[in-house]
Amino acid sequence: MAELAYHRLERRFRRIGALGDAAAVLHWDTATMMPAGGADARGDQLAELAAVRHGIVTAPETADLLSLAEAEGGLDAWQAANLREMKRTWAHASAVDEDLVAALSRATSKCEMVWRTARPANDFASVRPHLETVLSLVRETAEAKGTALGLSPYDALLDQYEPGGRAADVDVLFADLEAFLPPFLAQVLERQAAGPAPIRPKGPFPVERQKALAERLMARLGFDFDHGRLDVSAHPMCGGVPDDVRVTTRYTEDDFTRSLMAVLHETGHALYERGLPAAWRGQPAGEARGMSVHESQSLLVEMQVCRSAPFLAFAAPLLAEAFGGKGRAWQPANLHRLFTRVEPGLIRVDADEVTYPLHVILRTRLERAMIDGTLEVADLPEAWNQGMKDLLGLVPPGDGDGCMQDIHWYDGAWGYFPTYTLGALTAAQLFEAAQVADPAIASGVFRGDFAPLNEWLRRHVHERASLLPVADLLAEATGRPLDTTAFKAHVQRRYLA
Amino acid sequence: MAELAYHRLERRFRRIGALGDAAAVLHWDTATMMPAGGADARGDQLAELAAVRHGIVTAPETADLLSLAEAEGGLDAWQAANLREMKRTWAHASAVDEDLVAALSRATSKCEMVWRTARPANDFASVRPHLETVLSLVRETAEAKGTALGLSPYDALLDQYEPGGRAADVDVLFADLEAFLPPFLAQVLERQAAGPAPIRPKGPFPVERQKALAERLMARLGFDFDHGRLDVSAHPMCGGVPDDVRVTTRYTEDDFTRSLMAVLHETGHALYERGLPAAWRGQPAGEARGMSVHESQSLLVEMQVCRSAPFLAFAAPLLAEAFGGKGRAWQPANLHRLFTRVEPGLIRVDADEVTYPLHVILRTRLERAMIDGTLEVADLPEAWNQGMKDLLGLVPPGDGDGCMQDIHWYDGAWGYFPTYTLGALTAAQLFEAAQVADPAIASGVFRGDFAPLNEWLRRHVHERASLLPVADLLAEATGRPLDTTAFKAHVQRRYLA
Repeated sequence: MAELAYHRLERRFRRIGALGDAAAVLHWDTATMMPAGGADARGDQLAELAAVRHGIVTAPETADLLSLAEAEGGLDAWQAANLREMKRTWAHASAVDEDLVAALSRATSKCEMVWRTARPANDFASVRPHLETVLSLVRETAEAKGTALGLSPYDALLDQYEPGGRAADVDVLFADLEAFLPPFLAQVLERQAAGPAPIRPKGPFPVERQKALAERLMARLGFDFDHGRLDVSAHPMCGGVPDDVRVTTRYTEDDFTRSLMAVLHETGHALYERGLPAAWRGQPAGEARGMSVHESQSLLVEMQVCRSAPFLAFAAPLLAEAFGGKGRAWQPANLHRLFTRVEPGLIRVDADEVTYPLHVILRTRLERAMIDGTLEVADLPEAWNQGMKDLLGLVPPGDGDGCMQDIHWYDGAWGYFPTYTLGALTAAQLFEAAQVADPAIASGVFRGDFAPLNEWLRRHVHERASLLPVADLLAEATGRPLDTTAFKAHVQRRYLA
Repeated sequence: MAELAYHRLERRFRRIGALGDAAAVLHWDTATMMPAGGADARGDQLAELAAVRHGIVTAPETADLLSLAEAEGGLDAWQAANLREMKRTWAHASAVDEDLVAALSRATSKCEMVWRTARPANDFASVRPHLETVLSLVRETAEAKGTALGLSPYDALLDQYEPGGRAADVDVLFADLEAFLPPFLAQVLERQAAGPAPIRPKGPFPVERQKALAERLMARLGFDFDHGRLDVSAHPMCGGVPDDVRVTTRYTEDDFTRSLMAVLHETGHALYERGLPAAWRGQPAGEARGMSVHESQSLLVEMQVCRSAPFLAFAAPLLAEAFGGKGRAWQPANLHRLFTRVEPGLIRVDADEVTYPLHVILRTRLERAMIDGTLEVADLPEAWNQGMKDLLGLVPPGDGDGCMQDIHWYDGAWGYFPTYTLGALTAAQLFEAAQVADPAIASGVFRGDFAPLNEWLRRHVHERASLLPVADLLAEATGRPLDTTAFKAHVQRRYLA
């Protein structure tokens, strides 16, 4: 009997998966280990890996096998999900021809390179023509994918990062937040001003001690160093592959708090990757369920757990021990004030959890307008500054801390920004459901015992990988579709209770 | 006008080269960074990369293009060399079918895994059946390649590592060494015994200081840290790619000498890789010219230069400074005695340059007999021990320090061993020619100025890459084919003068 088309597809996608894993490790190496002079060779390696994967996905045989497998039927739930995700991968890849993919790749490489020097120089004019080229190719991609997938151009881009994500659904959630957050923020700032200011522990904090502390807390949270590492890169990230997860952070000796929270954030991503089902390694159904769920796992660990008073009560003695810290600065109450300080600022990546969604709302509005053609690149700085003024009451002194602060657009990534805030909402909703389901979760965090939480996340999120669409995954885990109630309840409890 | 077949081949081989480079970086990561739990995923990544490369090389279109390019003609010397090397790559790859390649890959993975525990347990019996399977598949490979290439089975294996290398030529050189070395060794030992014994500097030697010293000397030798790194692995190696060369060593705090010499040895490999012609990156003609030339570059740096009295006179103050060393142990004369100590031993990788060829001669004799079918795996331990007794007067107490000491056969690498000693002969012959050509080379070494030496090596070896066959490369650089005279003169000068 001939091999089923479905099984031939599994073998085909296992190859694609292994090549994708190879690229993931090389991306990590680029960020952590590679000397500057290796960049061109690395670019060639990654481009070729991408081309080979694209070639296998879009080969006529793949489309034939997908049709045959559809007709064969007889698949169990996981296999059916795998076939669905294979089709999704194929549909995105085959919607754009190779020339467009290559042109966009070249344009983003060039644009990103110019951006790296333009940003610190506040020189939007120099990067503008490159960004215009990138946007034009992204629009073309969005049109092509939209046509192929039956989506609006922006939804087609969003769908790359957030499978099934639609702007109309994002609108509802973001409108709610945009109404809620500004008055809430004013209340938080008023209340904060009335209380004691946090005391910042005095350094220096030697890098080796910061690293040892980070590793200790990572292990405590469930990170398995037989299947992962902690290293240094310019921007904290979680890379590698599920059986070899590579977390990175950066250190400055005068402050340990940002690096530590970055590590804990990335550890949330890492636990998700590591918890993906071993039986589905290398198959589309076995991959993480898109960017909002991924971000929910990092924000659940960082924002919901690690910046909470109970966690900081557990962690305070460990922090003090790590740096020989003494006095009020190291007490749980002060650390909690420090780690939950709210302050409107210009920079998204430095933002607290209350103001962060406002940064995302601005970016989402602008990037949709750019794809719809109602905002041109030339008008971006002004639109940005006006938006910052409206939403956060701040105007950047220059475009470097304004519309040039994030790499995303310069790297061609339109449709990514909303997933940060969808992730924050998802994190709150998941953690709320987890605590209701198992009281040991909340009490465990207080003692530094994360096993009950991890067990719940494994069963409801990690092990389910891409078995279900995002909305179904969340509905099964929490009993309802994504909304803003858990997030709003969380910030109200934390900042006003 | 249609694109020339030759240029289509260049594009094809550039892709193969980029995928090979990706694999090279992953191999480095496996040895240096990868946590143990990442091994299976890494195996999948490397196997898939190998399969994709093999697929591109052996695709019918490659053979068609090779024929067309041959017919087109009109190539310059480099292009003609490139086409010749493409054909060589194609001939080796297409001589064996994919099933045999996969079976050998699986068998060596298994055998190597068993070997890792069998070796320290002196348990040859447990690895024997696996080695028999590997040998049987290697014999099959040797037959297939021999038939396709018009070579004897052993020559077909040797040719993989040493392009154009033939057992008959090796025989002549090795017979010469086998006659010369035993009486020479006796003289050296007698003379050594009559002189003062070297004093071993007392540690501990902190790892950080060893690393700083190693990096200082690497930079001095011409290693460019914008295009490379120094890390730690279980076995010293030089990996990565020409624009991003990754040297490794290992440290023990009670002895800095072995680690340092390992670094200097690998730096020789690294300078070669880095010096390959930039214009031919990713093309077969731009690759290093096989294993004997590669080993000649590491041995030239380590044995010819860094263990010499002039170099050690230059380096002695740096070594003393690195570790705060004082007294006679740190004086050039003592360091020279230490770094040129000759002592017959059981272990090849610990051997000095006088006894090393005897280890290689034994392995070469045995591996040829195994391929010819005149020695079976079951009889290997006895043949090994008898050979050691005959050549070095020593018998291993167990097979762990005997026929199980090297990974090569357990990893399927028959035909590799001779290149170590061919490399030693080549190193001596090249360094002799270099010193004759430019007196600044010898005087430079004394002052820590390696520019004249590097310039000569670049012009005569590094930049020529695979432009010429090995024999022609050496003949053009030194005025004669490879022989033993320079090596014998070198050891006579160093050990008996």
